[in-house]
Amino acid sequence: MVDRTAPIALTMGEPAGIGGEIALMAWRNLRATGPTFFLIDDPIRITRLATEVGIAVPILTIENPTQANDTFSEGLPVLPIGMRVDFSAGRLEQANAAAVIRSIEKAVRFASTGAVSAVVTNPIQKSVLYQAGFKFPGHTEYLGALVGASVDPVMMLASPQLKVVPVTIHVALRQAIALLTTELIVDRARIVADALVRDFGIATPRLAVLGLNPHAGENASMGTEDRDIIAPAIEQLVAAGIAAFGPLPPDTAFTTGMRPSYDAAICMYHDQGLIPLKTLDIDSGVNITLGLPIVRTSPDHGTALDIAGKGIANPGSLIEAIKIAASIASHRRTEQRK
Amino acid sequence: MVDRTAPIALTMGEPAGIGGEIALMAWRNLRATGPTFFLIDDPIRITRLATEVGIAVPILTIENPTQANDTFSEGLPVLPIGMRVDFSAGRLEQANAAAVIRSIEKAVRFASTGAVSAVVTNPIQKSVLYQAGFKFPGHTEYLGALVGASVDPVMMLASPQLKVVPVTIHVALRQAIALLTTELIVDRARIVADALVRDFGIATPRLAVLGLNPHAGENASMGTEDRDIIAPAIEQLVAAGIAAFGPLPPDTAFTTGMRPSYDAAICMYHDQGLIPLKTLDIDSGVNITLGLPIVRTSPDHGTALDIAGKGIANPGSLIEAIKIAASIASHRRTEQRK
Repeated sequence: MVDRTAPIALTMGEPAGIGGEIALMAWRNLRATGPTFFLIDDPIRITRLATEVGIAVPILTIENPTQANDTFSEGLPVLPIGMRVDFSAGRLEQANAAAVIRSIEKAVRFASTGAVSAVVTNPIQKSVLYQAGFKFPGHTEYLGALVGASVDPVMMLASPQLKVVPVTIHVALRQAIALLTTELIVDRARIVADALVRDFGIATPRLAVLGLNPHAGENASMGTEDRDIIAPAIEQLVAAGIAAFGPLPPDTAFTTGMRPSYDAAICMYHDQGLIPLKTLDIDSGVNITLGLPIVRTSPDHGTALDIAGKGIANPGSLIEAIKIAASIASHRRTEQRK
Repeated sequence: MVDRTAPIALTMGEPAGIGGEIALMAWRNLRATGPTFFLIDDPIRITRLATEVGIAVPILTIENPTQANDTFSEGLPVLPIGMRVDFSAGRLEQANAAAVIRSIEKAVRFASTGAVSAVVTNPIQKSVLYQAGFKFPGHTEYLGALVGASVDPVMMLASPQLKVVPVTIHVALRQAIALLTTELIVDRARIVADALVRDFGIATPRLAVLGLNPHAGENASMGTEDRDIIAPAIEQLVAAGIAAFGPLPPDTAFTTGMRPSYDAAICMYHDQGLIPLKTLDIDSGVNITLGLPIVRTSPDHGTALDIAGKGIANPGSLIEAIKIAASIASHRRTEQRK
């Protein structure tokens, strides 16, 4: 049984990046109101970082997640990774790859046993991990493997104005088109519909399904995928009782007038979803992994090595990620009680 | 020599669509301030339309463009097409195709002789024109042929917040990728740079050149076009003295922080440019044809057959199109005097 008051675990992420300093800022922002979270990191490193960037936050070392609840109002609780992390802002160190991975593993283990209610991951630098033998295309796939997910995890980007889910993510645009099948769209859209019910408490989710081509192909006069691949997927979803509609002409699908007509937009490729989301709001987008047994969110930005250590990073996306993680965990508890 | 006070010609467009009623509304909006424009249409049809949609605007028939200047403050000047146009809102009539085309031809002829300073085109219904033997993919290509343009005309979409130019327009996304060459990007970007100087009075235009793939390919790990096709185009442009930069990761290229860093964004496909433009502002986008000897703009929407005849269409984009046409014509006169 999940503890209702279980805190949220935040991973270290790449120690040369902005993860540590935005964690300190997020604590200052959330200390009075919550949600309660703790960082899985090297407490000595974080203490030094707080001094170096001039963010005066008390660092409290904890031994287990439960202690985070008792200490959160006093300072940022840090649960030790169990490894020393030497770091310097902006400089990647191969030696830290093991610590980065162990922070993620610990967080996922806590989530799997219910000791934490959600995992929020700080950005990692994939190139460092690849050199250390990391075998996954990214964070999300690694988490899927750690929890033994039976389906491919699905990435949702959410901001206060828009939720988007690209059916393919980090592949060349040419390949994204080649990968597009009716089955893939239906599979992803079903996971999204389930998540909107379970994680967001939306009783009857409305899914806008985007077209691929300009004007959604205009009766297949500019590409046939909209008619032959996407429209049949929408038919299947509707037949399964899901309120899906489209294929929408992509350029008018994200306007102020259209956005209130759906709860999430199923997008055919990475930038079709991420361009409107980031154009509307670059600071509060959150990455949410759908289809996992554990709750996982992350800020929608990278390690920002160029500004790390200066105390000028914007913690907005991390703060939203923590808040949304708590909200999803709360909705899942409500669903379980039903 | 172009007459400095030459008015702007507005074409009829599809008579079953909203073109007539937004022309009436635009006149009400601009009558006091200008710019002066006249409509090339059937005066009897427009008089009937004004009554039917309840927009009480005096209709003044004129015989030549010059008369528009004398009459504009009194009513909407209409220069007869020379054909009767029977119409009913929302119902396409094959019989009107010839009148639609003649309105465009007249406007272009006036512009070519300097009798008007610019042409603004109301939306057409291409399917009707195709059945009547119209041979062009769209309005823009037809205008290019009418004026005997030596280069392919280039479509810019402009709103107060953003100017975008897709290097390919109405083709399937798959084909847009296949058509992408260094030469094409350089060619389009040069036309844009020239137009920003000549038509917008920007002394040293800054061009943001977008990548094609997610994160602009991330060192060619997700597609090679960004490195092999787009980056060399930017090098050629810079070598030619044009302030071009990129390839930019598409998802962060249109944020509030990035937009002030460029005057126009060169986009790799239709929706890469049109999604951010319309997401930010659906009502005031204007279509501007670059690379023509005449000035031509149009509202950035279609015939809207579903709402035609109800008086509820938004004239915002047409009004902007008329204002921008006047501004471009004014900049060109200034350039000519240098």
